[in-house]
Amino acid sequence: MSINFQSLHQASDCKARVTTFNTGHGPVTTPVFMPVGTIGTVKTLTPADLLDNGTQVMLSNTYHLYLRPGTEILESFGGLHKFNQWSGPILTDSGGFQIYSLDELKKISEEGVEFKSHWDGSKHLFTPENVVDIQRSIGSDIMMVLDYLTGNPSDREVANNAHLQTIRWAERARRRFLESEGLYGYPQQQFGIVQGGVYDDLRRASIEGLVNLDFEGYAIGGLAVGEDAETRRHITDLCTDHLPREKARYLMGVGKPEDILDGIELGVDMFDCVIPSRNARNGSLFTASGRLNIRNASHKFSDRPIDADCDCHTCRNYPCGYLHHMFRVNEMLGFRLATVHNIYFYMKLTRLAREAIENDQFMSFKAAFLERYRANH
Amino acid sequence: MSINFQSLHQASDCKARVTTFNTGHGPVTTPVFMPVGTIGTVKTLTPADLLDNGTQVMLSNTYHLYLRPGTEILESFGGLHKFNQWSGPILTDSGGFQIYSLDELKKISEEGVEFKSHWDGSKHLFTPENVVDIQRSIGSDIMMVLDYLTGNPSDREVANNAHLQTIRWAERARRRFLESEGLYGYPQQQFGIVQGGVYDDLRRASIEGLVNLDFEGYAIGGLAVGEDAETRRHITDLCTDHLPREKARYLMGVGKPEDILDGIELGVDMFDCVIPSRNARNGSLFTASGRLNIRNASHKFSDRPIDADCDCHTCRNYPCGYLHHMFRVNEMLGFRLATVHNIYFYMKLTRLAREAIENDQFMSFKAAFLERYRANH
Repeated sequence: MSINFQSLHQASDCKARVTTFNTGHGPVTTPVFMPVGTIGTVKTLTPADLLDNGTQVMLSNTYHLYLRPGTEILESFGGLHKFNQWSGPILTDSGGFQIYSLDELKKISEEGVEFKSHWDGSKHLFTPENVVDIQRSIGSDIMMVLDYLTGNPSDREVANNAHLQTIRWAERARRRFLESEGLYGYPQQQFGIVQGGVYDDLRRASIEGLVNLDFEGYAIGGLAVGEDAETRRHITDLCTDHLPREKARYLMGVGKPEDILDGIELGVDMFDCVIPSRNARNGSLFTASGRLNIRNASHKFSDRPIDADCDCHTCRNYPCGYLHHMFRVNEMLGFRLATVHNIYFYMKLTRLAREAIENDQFMSFKAAFLERYRANH
Repeated sequence: MSINFQSLHQASDCKARVTTFNTGHGPVTTPVFMPVGTIGTVKTLTPADLLDNGTQVMLSNTYHLYLRPGTEILESFGGLHKFNQWSGPILTDSGGFQIYSLDELKKISEEGVEFKSHWDGSKHLFTPENVVDIQRSIGSDIMMVLDYLTGNPSDREVANNAHLQTIRWAERARRRFLESEGLYGYPQQQFGIVQGGVYDDLRRASIEGLVNLDFEGYAIGGLAVGEDAETRRHITDLCTDHLPREKARYLMGVGKPEDILDGIELGVDMFDCVIPSRNARNGSLFTASGRLNIRNASHKFSDRPIDADCDCHTCRNYPCGYLHHMFRVNEMLGFRLATVHNIYFYMKLTRLAREAIENDQFMSFKAAFLERYRANH
């Protein structure tokens, strides 16, 4: 398989682009949003539900899959695809973000990260090398290197040390990747992760270090961890200016619909975020005219769908009043139907963005979307 | 609409029968198992899932629907069918069983039952009349009368008083039913409920009292509340001997697969029970060769379906190892896929029972099923 990355359309008035590339489980067309299936499952949904919603790539987490079910079980099944029955591409995060989130439970050294399982407190060590090995066991189509993430803003020295550590780990990870092979007969890709906090020169240095290693794609890490929206835009803009044009660019952990449109404008190709699925389970639902909280009593008697413009299974079949009732009695079907809707909303957003770029109308599409989306705020 | 009850097949060596009757939402063919959608939803499942599994009738609970969402909301939607999108027949229990279960929270008088909401402790009164009215608001195709349930065994005097109270309430309920009309343009039916505990003469008296009121069907209540299997068989046998042949017979709250086959043998047409759905959420799954607990570590590496003979969505798509993993990490999709399987198992059991009766082979079908089902116990 050749990755065969192609830039199909380039906006004339911004950096937005439509690209495509191959994976071991089929092609991906960007801009793409990847729903988060933390432990192998996008909570409450089947793979068939994800396909119905237009999902191209499922994201899953190395940290979580390593702890449960563990690599022995994953290997015995022939990888995550044969385990969870998702037949499309899978991208796995390296665990860097999860370990960053485990405040008390980690110890970072040159060798790697020692951490304690959130399940049972048992000790484990992630190294740049074994994170590649674990992702070989998972069979991720796109694997991420182990990175060192700091919150924003961090002192320059902290950010610099983390960036340098990330580069040294990336070298080791790339070496392990190139010296090993996939276990299941299809090729895998490896993405590097840009760090450097909110410091332009550190970000440039990070990109230079990573590009030398010639990854199949590059992620912008260390954003959506405390910085304001303007800083995020600035750093994203700087990164996409310096990252190679002929490789996919992935903005990790971002974000709200408006953040995703910002990222697309700035030349980002790939996104993931827990917001659509996590918000769904909290009753916070996306519509073309903004978010609504289905727990709000105003929905009690509503016989309208969540969003009259939405074609998802939930909006085609269920009135808001019934969804409100299900949330009021903690009925799991409510979480499921809300998740279907929110994932569909994100998939439709990125599909419409792709179409707008193809017609070289992305900026006007973005403006029109945001005007309506923010009208009620 | 005429109910047009017809007995289509009668076994020659037992009381098992295949019958059919009409409802405001289509015909029902018995023996039928009705999954329990307590508050309007069979937990985790959509109506489409229920149809896929072969569900004919959904059962729901007057007590729960009355408290949430309440009749005002249900009426504003035009009844439960338009609220929860289940297009087939709905049977609603009267609330008698729920109130029986609320040990501390009830006060029973000639007028009816005063009880406190399990949600907020607010006081409410159920009378034979308002329970009919509530079921008019729900739009149940088959409504049950308010009954007075006692556990088994109860003293003869307690059982007799409860039976007599049930009959007096049934008279009032029947009067209200005959003097009122459905709210949504389709006809509803009303079933009486036989009480009388474990006492043959009380059961006979209860049936005599109810049959005088000429209900559209009759339920056998007050079983599966503490008595042993032999007593349950005996009382069921006695009731089906005395209930009219030309009306449906419904054994409430029963039960395990073996109990359902017993009931069918003894001439019962309709069943409901929380066992398949509740057990599913606990990881207890039904197979042709007995129950298994998917939480058991023995399933960790299993790439086999729950039941190789099962054609449900879950068995066609997912290995036990993945289901085990989902239960281990409390993933809601696991509860959903397990519920799909268990409901399908019950639907297949009753479908095969119908086919066996049609071929006058019910007793050999039952023996073969139980031999295999119990082989591993």
